[in-house]
Parts: sequence; structure tokens; C-alpha cells
Amino acid sequence: MSEWRKDPIVGRWVIISSERGKRPSDWANEPNAKGGGFCPFCPGNESKTPPEIMALRELTNERDVGGWTIRVIPNKFPAVNIEGEVNPKGYGNFDMMNGVGAHEVIIETPNHAYDLSDLSINEIEKIMLVYRNRIDELTKDPRFRYVLIFKNHGVAAGASLEHSHSQIIAIPIVPKRVSEELEGSKKFYQFKKRCIYCDVIKQEVATQLRVVSMTENFLTIEPYAPRFPFETWLLPLNHYSHFERMPEFMYKETASALKDALSRINLALGYPPFNFILHSSPIQDENLFHYHWHIEIIPKLTKVAGFEWGSGFYINSTSPESAAEYLTNIIQ
Amino acid sequence: MSEWRKDPIVGRWVIISSERGKRPSDWANEPNAKGGGFCPFCPGNESKTPPEIMALRELTNERDVGGWTIRVIPNKFPAVNIEGEVNPKGYGNFDMMNGVGAHEVIIETPNHAYDLSDLSINEIEKIMLVYRNRIDELTKDPRFRYVLIFKNHGVAAGASLEHSHSQIIAIPIVPKRVSEELEGSKKFYQFKKRCIYCDVIKQEVATQLRVVSMTENFLTIEPYAPRFPFETWLLPLNHYSHFERMPEFMYKETASALKDALSRINLALGYPPFNFILHSSPIQDENLFHYHWHIEIIPKLTKVAGFEWGSGFYINSTSPESAAEYLTNIIQ
Repeated sequence: MSEWRKDPIVGRWVIISSERGKRPSDWANEPNAKGGGFCPFCPGNESKTPPEIMALRELTNERDVGGWTIRVIPNKFPAVNIEGEVNPKGYGNFDMMNGVGAHEVIIETPNHAYDLSDLSINEIEKIMLVYRNRIDELTKDPRFRYVLIFKNHGVAAGASLEHSHSQIIAIPIVPKRVSEELEGSKKFYQFKKRCIYCDVIKQEVATQLRVVSMTENFLTIEPYAPRFPFETWLLPLNHYSHFERMPEFMYKETASALKDALSRINLALGYPPFNFILHSSPIQDENLFHYHWHIEIIPKLTKVAGFEWGSGFYINSTSPESAAEYLTNIIQ
Repeated sequence: MSEWRKDPIVGRWVIISSERGKRPSDWANEPNAKGGGFCPFCPGNESKTPPEIMALRELTNERDVGGWTIRVIPNKFPAVNIEGEVNPKGYGNFDMMNGVGAHEVIIETPNHAYDLSDLSINEIEKIMLVYRNRIDELTKDPRFRYVLIFKNHGVAAGASLEHSHSQIIAIPIVPKRVSEELEGSKKFYQFKKRCIYCDVIKQEVATQLRVVSMTENFLTIEPYAPRFPFETWLLPLNHYSHFERMPEFMYKETASALKDALSRINLALGYPPFNFILHSSPIQDENLFHYHWHIEIIPKLTKVAGFEWGSGFYINSTSPESAAEYLTNIIQ
């Protein structure tokens, strides 16, 4: 028997249809093996990318040379342009504005053979701190209202280069998806004076039905109404609305939870392509009582088709309870 | 220079970033060649599907035998269940209800080798009339508020069987995407007392910037703020809110416009995988002055990645103006 479930934050309905379900081993992944050929993200090829925005190097202050551990560069084919004003215009029924924004790439490791989950917790912590640093810098630009940080891993998840990297887009509009989360959680807060995410955390910890793992500071769950099989959320147990405004020690905690979750997904599903997205508050906003930053990981196992495009609803063949069970029982 | 464009109906922003653009011939499609092997949708294999709901046969009244031109069957792996009541329930923060709904498959032709666009206008008209018939039947079930009709063509677009077919899902909730269209167009109507779609049609016909083709009764355009390269919309020139409530002759007009649009897309893009979705009003609603039914065709050329999942916005590398130019100049 399939069931409709409603996401408690944005109100999106999802059909959990486990009759169509598969075991993790049934998901056939496109091969993710790292090929040969020229890679512009590898050390020694710094001159093949646009000049770097920043990099972590221990032995030199020189720019655009080797010796770095993390390197941030402008996207060579940016979706948005760093120059110019927003300049809104209208033509009859149509509104437009200049494609102003920043589009940056964070090369997470010099080692072409490593995926994010292969890095140590300390190395991933440094990536988290670079995220924070870039958000802080981009917040100084008054044109930008939101910074979106995400990772496309594997061809099927939209990555055009295989060398491990994440992306930052700073834009003058709060994204539709984030607005829905902000509105949903604000409505809940106005009614109950509590953060809906904090409430969900309490309920998940109490029932343990969908918990993948938990540390002193972080909770990893399969959400109640997941759009996709093995969709996984990482939430700090304490309430922080902005990723970039946490106490220092929390970045290592985030790194540890991320490595744990990705490792479990990799072992359960055979290193699938995936996206992860950092959901945080609009950068210019004050601290929000109703919004709780978190990371959503989406393994790319299924194809989004006509039903999803037509309805904005999702059909998910794996219940979050069974996905949580698989992921919890992974021996690392 | 890329630009942000706002969909005039739902208010969704799209980044048109033509610097990343490609020519139609640059889109590498996964092969769509029709393979061998057993096909449950082929004539002679009627016993391998669930018993048919209806079929068009000229020579016999017998059911579940050959001799049909179009055949409608229940989906063998339905996302929703036809039996039971909706029965909403809550557990703490979480709401759910039974996965009640109808999930049907329309086998569009007995000929395994034919795609929808290979059929004659008369044959496609019959499919349109079957759509109407099924909507009318499903409207009699008071549990259902919406009937979604869509087609997944090709593996990359989510089709699990290659024999040409479309799908019908009847559900107890108006889909989120449709709600957004209904709300956006209602707001416009309350303000201007005009249908936003009728307004867009007028503006598109006047500028011709994004028109692919036009007949006496139908307009095919690339929309102003398309999510995807070569996203194509078919709109009746006259205002009808419900697909199933048009005058009889309009179904042939719809068939003709659909064949024309699919043929142009096939020739321009080398028979790409695609989804099409029929956007119509909620079945139980009276005729609506503010909503205008239409078809959206989405060729599956790109991969939806972290940016889109995180933002609900889209980055599109092909401007609708250049896509319209390609499609208009196709010689059929």
C-alpha cells in the first residue's frame, strides 16, 4: 500500500510507493571511475583556470601555482556575471534583470583520485571553513541576498569535471526553494513559537525510526517525506539559522557528520552520483528563530520524469524507514 | 551576458546563460533505438498486462485480445492504489494519507516501431479523445481532484518501456505545480480581469520572437522563461480552462499541433528523449476565466543538478529566441 506524506516544512506531498521498491544493491549506477586525460583542476595546471580567488598554501604566498590543499577559482563558464548592476526591466508581461551574481568553484583536494569522503575529517573541516570564508566575503557585496553552496558528484548528477569540487553561487534573489522553507517555518513559528526543524529533530530522536546516526552535535536522518530514495539530511542539534555564524568547533562537527553520511551512502549504494546542497538563511538577514540551516544529500538513483515535472510532487520507491535501516547497519 | 527572466505565471526565475549555449547538433543523446526482446504492450501479449480498462477495436467487442489501435490498462506497478479511502492521519509533526489514486497507461499504437510523432494526425486525434474520455470517467470518482496526463519518452526521460505510451494519474490533491499556476493566473485575473495566458499569446503573436508555429487554433512557442533548452509550449488560441471541455474539432487541432511540434524537435535535436505534460484545470472545478490549459514539452537534454535542487531556479544555456529560430526553420 502506498501512502502520501507531507513535508512538514514546505508542505510538499510525496508518494511513498514501496511496492516499487528496490534493495540498495538493485540500483545500477553509471560507472564513476576516474578517467585519464587532462584535468584543469590538478596541481600544475593552475594557469588553465581563471586566476584564483583564494587558496590554502602552507609554503608560499604565490598565487596560481601548485602547493595548495584547497583552491577557489571563478567558474570558467559562469551561469551569472560578477560585473554590473541588477537593473530590473519589463516588456509587457515579461520581467527580466541582468544575470548578476558570483559563480565560484572550490577544488576540494589536489589529489585527482580522491572523492570528498576519502578526505580526513580535518581536511573536510578546512573545506567547511572555506565555505564560511567565501560566504562572509560575498556578504560584503550589497547586490547579493543569497549564497548557494552545492556539490554535483558524478556525471549523472551534473558534474562536468570529475576532480572533486563544490560550487558557490551568490545571487540577488532568495531562491524559490529557500523561500518556501522560510515561509513554511515562519508560519509554524508564528503559531507555536518553536522552530519546526528543532521539533522534527526531537520527534526523530524520540522515535529513532529514521535516524541514520547521531553525535553530540549533529543528527543525520532520512526525512519523513523524502523526494528521492536515500535522500539524507544533516542537521545541527542546536539551533543555528546561518551556516556561517556557528561557533568555531561546529565546522569540524559538520565535517565529521558529512564524512560519515557520505561514507554510508557510498558503501550502501556503491559510490552513486549525488548532489548535496547547503540550505542556510539569506546572508543579509539577522539570526532567525524559525529557520535551521542543514545539508541535504540526494543520491542520483532515479530519473525525474513527467509526473514530477507536471505535478511538483514526487514518487519515491524506498521508504525512509527502510533506507535509514540500511544506512545505520553499514559497517564502516 | 546572462540574464534573469521571470515566468509571468508562476513567478519562477530562470537564468538564461547563452554563453554556455550549444547548437542543437551539440546535444549528445543517449541512443533511443528500439531494441528487441519481449514487449508486454505489443499485440498478442494482452494477457501479460492487467485487464484492460478500455480499447479501440473495430472488428470485435472482445477484451484483452489483439486488433486494437489504442489500449488503456492499469499500470502494473502503480504509484497509487485505486482502492480505499484517503483517510488523512497525523503523527506529531508529520501528516500522511493513503496513496489513493488511479494510475493508467495508454498504449498509443499497436506498432512497436512507431513513436507518437510517426502516427497520422487522425491517429493522434484518437489518442486525444481517449485522454478526454478517461478524464471524464475519472471525474465521476469523487475522491479525485486532479487528473495528470503525461508522457515519458526514452530512457533518459524516465520511460521504462519503449513501446510508445502515455500515462494518467488521478489523485486526491491538486499538484503543487498546478496550484502555483492557478494562483499566479488568478492573481493576474483579479488585478486585470484578463487571462495571463491569453495576454502572453497576444504578446508572442505580436513580437513573433518566440513563435515556433501557428495555425488558426493553436500557437506553439518557446516560453519567455524556459527552464530547459527547447522547452516548448502548445496553447489553444481561444480560452479553454479544461482540456476535456473543448468543442469536438479542437482535438484534431491539438493532435496536429502536437505532431508538428514533436516532429520539429525530433528533426532539430535528433529524436531526443522528452517528457510532455498536459496542464489542465482541476477536474471538479467549474470553467475558469483565469486558467488556460496547455501542453508543455521538455526535451531531456541536460541534467538537473545541485543548483536547481537547491534553489528551485533553473540555468538554461539556450535562449528561447534562438531555439524558436531553429525550430521554425526546420523543413519537414
